[in-house]
Amino acid sequence: MLKVYVDLMSQPCRALIIFLTVNKIPHTVHTVALRKGQNRTPEFMKLNPMQKVPVMEEDGFILTESDAILKYLTAAYSVPDHWYPQQPQKRARVDEYTAWHHMNTRLHASKVFITEVLTPRLSGQPVDDVKLQRALWELDATLDKLETMFLKDTGFLCGDDLTLADLLAVCELMQPLAGGRDVLMNRPRLQEWKSRIQSVLGDSFDQAHKILYRLKDKHISKL
Amino acid sequence: MLKVYVDLMSQPCRALIIFLTVNKIPHTVHTVALRKGQNRTPEFMKLNPMQKVPVMEEDGFILTESDAILKYLTAAYSVPDHWYPQQPQKRARVDEYTAWHHMNTRLHASKVFITEVLTPRLSGQPVDDVKLQRALWELDATLDKLETMFLKDTGFLCGDDLTLADLLAVCELMQPLAGGRDVLMNRPRLQEWKSRIQSVLGDSFDQAHKILYRLKDKHISKL
Repeated sequence: MLKVYVDLMSQPCRALIIFLTVNKIPHTVHTVALRKGQNRTPEFMKLNPMQKVPVMEEDGFILTESDAILKYLTAAYSVPDHWYPQQPQKRARVDEYTAWHHMNTRLHASKVFITEVLTPRLSGQPVDDVKLQRALWELDATLDKLETMFLKDTGFLCGDDLTLADLLAVCELMQPLAGGRDVLMNRPRLQEWKSRIQSVLGDSFDQAHKILYRLKDKHISKL
Repeated sequence: MLKVYVDLMSQPCRALIIFLTVNKIPHTVHTVALRKGQNRTPEFMKLNPMQKVPVMEEDGFILTESDAILKYLTAAYSVPDHWYPQQPQKRARVDEYTAWHHMNTRLHASKVFITEVLTPRLSGQPVDDVKLQRALWELDATLDKLETMFLKDTGFLCGDDLTLADLLAVCELMQPLAGGRDVLMNRPRLQEWKSRIQSVLGDSFDQAHKILYRLKDKHISKL
């Protein structure tokens, strides 16, 4: 039986849980609460010395890195081809996005979340506005690229169908919502893209984002 | 005919050229000299609005991101399976490394090169020693992980055979040599790993690193 070790506050963990749910892949969920340091216990570090989630384990085969886990699952389980097409050029488009993702969508959306939510909470200090402005500016450049270089005139980032690229991207772009910030607010094209993703994923999307929605509500009630 | 747009001062471009040479894949090389801003010409930006190299073009199919290009080539051309094994668990190991690579080997080896070589050359200012020490310290942590979490007791990063992971990694780790710095100096296990890679790649490795070796010699003659 497939086991996954996740924390739903982690963007790629949400992508993994949504993927498993939508594709009805049997699995057990083991929560690793990052805020409690459960990623630094000796047991967890035996699984992943990098101390990161998600981790997947399947009959002794341990795999880290969400992007690798998702691609492995498309090969090892029966899932629709659109997620990670077999056709080499279509597949290459997904690989192109997932390679680009790390230093762009993931890095810049995370920075906004870290600067606006995580650092103030851990340090007890107010938000560093200069750092936040820079992070928002960098994220804006990434959103421009998502629109003009990936989305272009297609429905999804890598063409007309939903792929792993969209799933990984949208989960990152949701993260700043924990601080009450909707980074897609003035981006109608990306909003439509997000709606298209949600309409394919159905309820699994909101389920995986429950904790994030709760943080958002908490944040708004404090204002 | 496959066309590739490269600058051999770019680490992933060297990986691509080595791969094409070793696997005897017919191609034409188009040099995009980054130092002359040839990545910002209207013609090149039509190919890749991101202004990055390498770019590959094959009968109108344009692909960016070295990692995606290399994986595509293993699917579209006849190359030995060891580069990117078909077997899902073995392939997942390569995907795991290539996902990790961006924010680790690539980021940290590049930072050393940028801080020690590129920034001083472009600004005319001396090396920022505080920044360099931090970059070296971060790279050291990455080298530890390469040894203990990837290499472990195997010959290559993802097991007993050479894969795309090794090729991408070694080309990054060569980069600081442009400033006369051998980052593997006190790392016998990684040095042996590098020798193993070189013995498989043969002459193509030194050929692709000619410009880098020239910069290293220039740097040493200045001391």
